[in-house]
Amino acid sequence: MVLTMEWKQGTLVLLDQTKLPLQVEWVSCSDYRRVIRAIRDMEVRGAPAIGAAAAYAMVLGWRQCAAGAGKAVAPAALLERYRAVKEELDAARPTAVNLAWATNLMYRAAEKGTADHCSCADLDARLEQLARHVYEQDIAVNKKMGENGAACVPDKAVILTHCNAGALATCGWGTALGVIRTAWGQGRVERIYSDETRPLLQGARLTVWELMQDKIPVTVITDNMAAWVMKTKGVNMVITGADRIVRNGDTANKIGTYGVALLAKAHGIPFYVAAPASTFDFGLAEGSRIPIEQREPDEVRRFCGNYSAPPDADVFNPAFDVTPASLITGIITEYGVLRPPYSESIQALQAKVLKEEMDSWKA
Amino acid sequence: MVLTMEWKQGTLVLLDQTKLPLQVEWVSCSDYRRVIRAIRDMEVRGAPAIGAAAAYAMVLGWRQCAAGAGKAVAPAALLERYRAVKEELDAARPTAVNLAWATNLMYRAAEKGTADHCSCADLDARLEQLARHVYEQDIAVNKKMGENGAACVPDKAVILTHCNAGALATCGWGTALGVIRTAWGQGRVERIYSDETRPLLQGARLTVWELMQDKIPVTVITDNMAAWVMKTKGVNMVITGADRIVRNGDTANKIGTYGVALLAKAHGIPFYVAAPASTFDFGLAEGSRIPIEQREPDEVRRFCGNYSAPPDADVFNPAFDVTPASLITGIITEYGVLRPPYSESIQALQAKVLKEEMDSWKA
Repeated sequence: MVLTMEWKQGTLVLLDQTKLPLQVEWVSCSDYRRVIRAIRDMEVRGAPAIGAAAAYAMVLGWRQCAAGAGKAVAPAALLERYRAVKEELDAARPTAVNLAWATNLMYRAAEKGTADHCSCADLDARLEQLARHVYEQDIAVNKKMGENGAACVPDKAVILTHCNAGALATCGWGTALGVIRTAWGQGRVERIYSDETRPLLQGARLTVWELMQDKIPVTVITDNMAAWVMKTKGVNMVITGADRIVRNGDTANKIGTYGVALLAKAHGIPFYVAAPASTFDFGLAEGSRIPIEQREPDEVRRFCGNYSAPPDADVFNPAFDVTPASLITGIITEYGVLRPPYSESIQALQAKVLKEEMDSWKA
Repeated sequence: MVLTMEWKQGTLVLLDQTKLPLQVEWVSCSDYRRVIRAIRDMEVRGAPAIGAAAAYAMVLGWRQCAAGAGKAVAPAALLERYRAVKEELDAARPTAVNLAWATNLMYRAAEKGTADHCSCADLDARLEQLARHVYEQDIAVNKKMGENGAACVPDKAVILTHCNAGALATCGWGTALGVIRTAWGQGRVERIYSDETRPLLQGARLTVWELMQDKIPVTVITDNMAAWVMKTKGVNMVITGADRIVRNGDTANKIGTYGVALLAKAHGIPFYVAAPASTFDFGLAEGSRIPIEQREPDEVRRFCGNYSAPPDADVFNPAFDVTPASLITGIITEYGVLRPPYSESIQALQAKVLKEEMDSWKA
């Protein structure tokens, strides 16, 4: 299985995804600020992977807070500083909700630990265990999503996907590609078409590489070929990941997803989103409220150091767009496949998630 | 005005469009086979520019046939060899119809010249004059299209365009960008959004460069941003060029055009095509009969010389797609703006073109 990150004796080791597919290099982070840089520069990317990396960054951050304060200090005295660490991390990328979800989880655990009068060392151990749990849980959740989603995959599936919602976007197995992996294991996948996904080419660089590692037949296309492929290549399913799903089902995902969803609708092809419950933002009513990260103009003007547009060209470079719920056939989660009307199915999902959370806090 | 090609004392000098926007370099062709290479490698590209370059290549080809045959030979003896030159040229790129339109025109002029018992030298002069006529006519036609099309441009126009249908795709002024230039001169254009147009980036490299030369406000986007730009940036017109338009109005153009047309429809934005009468293939009934050129996989696997996908990745790389007539609001020609039902308006166009051709042969 493709590995995205590893926790090795107090260091977070990340696969540098900016170097793929030509080089397989690793980045060692023993400072939470190095993880922030990795998130911002997209050495680690994909909402669930960012969540897990942030959880481990919160372990590093706690250690840095404690080391700065000396041995005698009580954890409660560190909380304010720890909150600042959390906020720094949250600011690394604004759109994906998993980042803040993970840092919240960690911060609340620290709060609970101080309320329980833990020692610094005990709390340290608790936080490390919780981060490992986030990591392992993500893989388990992806496998479950794979099972749930595979039931939506037609026989002789020809699937178009956008960006990378694969093992590389998660701690392993993948969301959208996890569904594809499970369906492939069941012998029901014929071919994947992967949009290259400009500007950062996560499709060409990561999805294609990842599927080739697993010998799943994959064809890379430029983004603007998607419509023609749908029309001429028998595409019978589109599946993508998500960076944030709000209460009415509107979904933020990598720029281009909205266009792909419109094109799928025009061709009568079902359009699925695969995302764990941690990707849902139950606090937002609808998609127009989602902040859309704008990135550096040079990402559009150039690639790998070479300019394709004039260096002084004006650029629009949103990292994400929002696909309205009306274009989404189903949302595949670890709790099952949500169907329209999403306001109802997402409310039911929220109830399940809350109940599980309550149960886990009781335990 | 941006210059695409020049005929200088028996040599065709082409602006090397593969080097733009960073380098302005010229290619000198004194052998028709060098022009074939320029067409195939897209040093010259855009259907009308290819047509004019092919016309000049037919002048070069005639001279090469004549030079090979010696002084005493009659033109009629060269026609078979000249036909082979024409067929070599026609094979350079299969989709655009202007190439064969121009070589046909030149070949028929040679046939007529031999029937008129021209000397080799006379026929040589006739052919050179005809090629110059193709070149000058193209610029005149573009200006006329600009006038006709500007009437379709809304006030405060925010226009999305795909690929390069500009001065660089023609002998000057441009088709789609010619319409934009004329409307800009009338003070009715606010901003152009230019799809970068992978794989060969004619939008980012050529359209953006060309519009910046003329100080027309232009923003470059990746192809997959088109839908989001339509939704959020007030786009009120889409306009592209065409490589071949058939009898029912189905239109082959740069890969991605079909998707852009579908997205325009989904957003209620009018979608126009601008193309001279020479782009029409009155011999084909509908778009599914248009041959679609498949190009080298490495165009997709690489970006500006660097691999973005694994070097052994499977690739689909059609250079064009076909936009069905039902998605096209109007087709702007030098004879006026054609409207649906296209089978009728294109038939009327054909009648006009035939009449003019008859008149010119009579003259």
